[in-house]
Amino acid sequence: MTDALPLLQQLIDALKALPGVGPKTAQRMAFQLLERNRDGGKALGDALLKAMEHIGHCAQCRTFSETELCAICRDVERGQSSLLCVVGSSADLQAIEQTGQFDGRYFVLMGQLSPLDGIGPAELGLDVLEQQLNAGNIEEVILATNQTVEGEATAFYIAELCHRRQITVSRLAQGVPFGGELEYLDGSTLSYAFSGRKSF
Amino acid sequence: MTDALPLLQQLIDALKALPGVGPKTAQRMAFQLLERNRDGGKALGDALLKAMEHIGHCAQCRTFSETELCAICRDVERGQSSLLCVVGSSADLQAIEQTGQFDGRYFVLMGQLSPLDGIGPAELGLDVLEQQLNAGNIEEVILATNQTVEGEATAFYIAELCHRRQITVSRLAQGVPFGGELEYLDGSTLSYAFSGRKSF
Repeated sequence: MTDALPLLQQLIDALKALPGVGPKTAQRMAFQLLERNRDGGKALGDALLKAMEHIGHCAQCRTFSETELCAICRDVERGQSSLLCVVGSSADLQAIEQTGQFDGRYFVLMGQLSPLDGIGPAELGLDVLEQQLNAGNIEEVILATNQTVEGEATAFYIAELCHRRQITVSRLAQGVPFGGELEYLDGSTLSYAFSGRKSF
Repeated sequence: MTDALPLLQQLIDALKALPGVGPKTAQRMAFQLLERNRDGGKALGDALLKAMEHIGHCAQCRTFSETELCAICRDVERGQSSLLCVVGSSADLQAIEQTGQFDGRYFVLMGQLSPLDGIGPAELGLDVLEQQLNAGNIEEVILATNQTVEGEATAFYIAELCHRRQITVSRLAQGVPFGGELEYLDGSTLSYAFSGRKSF
């Protein structure tokens, strides 16, 4: 079977490049597209080739962009904003954009400091960030990296860069999530929520 | 964001054509490919375009094939076998092939009789199957359609075609699955297992 259908087998193997897709799911996807949605399959093939070829990184904030500057950095108001939000990935940027709460600009690290994996300041483009901090028009840096060990380490490192330049730094609030029930909350979150309590 | 990245948005939308992939998963897949596996993404794009373009159906058994006859039908021994196994889909065929238990040929219905969805005998290529039954070199037909209402209806219909031509028909055994514990088995399976019991 597999000898006779190299194209089908090639497709199933190629689908395994997608995160969370194993051999069984890949086979189901291939059959589904072949049986019911060849147009969708062709469109996906086209979109993949174009995206892999033409999507690069924004020269200012490093997020994915097919133009030299992304839409936010091109925006007259936002692109030169004095408020800079540092996020770990383009997905995080998108999550913040969807809240509609932030109207400054971003810097996307495309990762987190992780010396054991060989990811140091250079890999995260922190030299580019330093240049932007040196340029002098940034007043506040909001650290929106993940609340994980690597995310915290990255935040500390960037906070240090800002302190040296007398730039205000803030970190996203930690505490009880919206709709969270105390009973089911983990101890660390609850401790943070206690130590970070606000007058009411 | 979405305005500035039509290619990224196009890719995310296109990924939703895959079964079980919603907007969040599609976004994760797109970012993963762009960040870590552009080569895999390109290979997938290529494989999709080639597969959607070139994979058709085998002229004899109707399974997916990029050549006129699939490997099994081209095989000198198997292609003219007097043992024909009728399955519902190419995935079912592949599952049976993986057991290595069957060395006859197949007929793939690419669906099941379902009049309410407009799937009748013609849509399943049962006219093609009838021609093959008329050709006279088939001695036994094994019905390996699903054990569902539609699968049973399809099996009955094909059994009727065979009976009219005095061709032996058999159906896959129903019963307790391998490793199955009686305690957790549904009542229907257990009844079938009882009525189909064999001397030991």
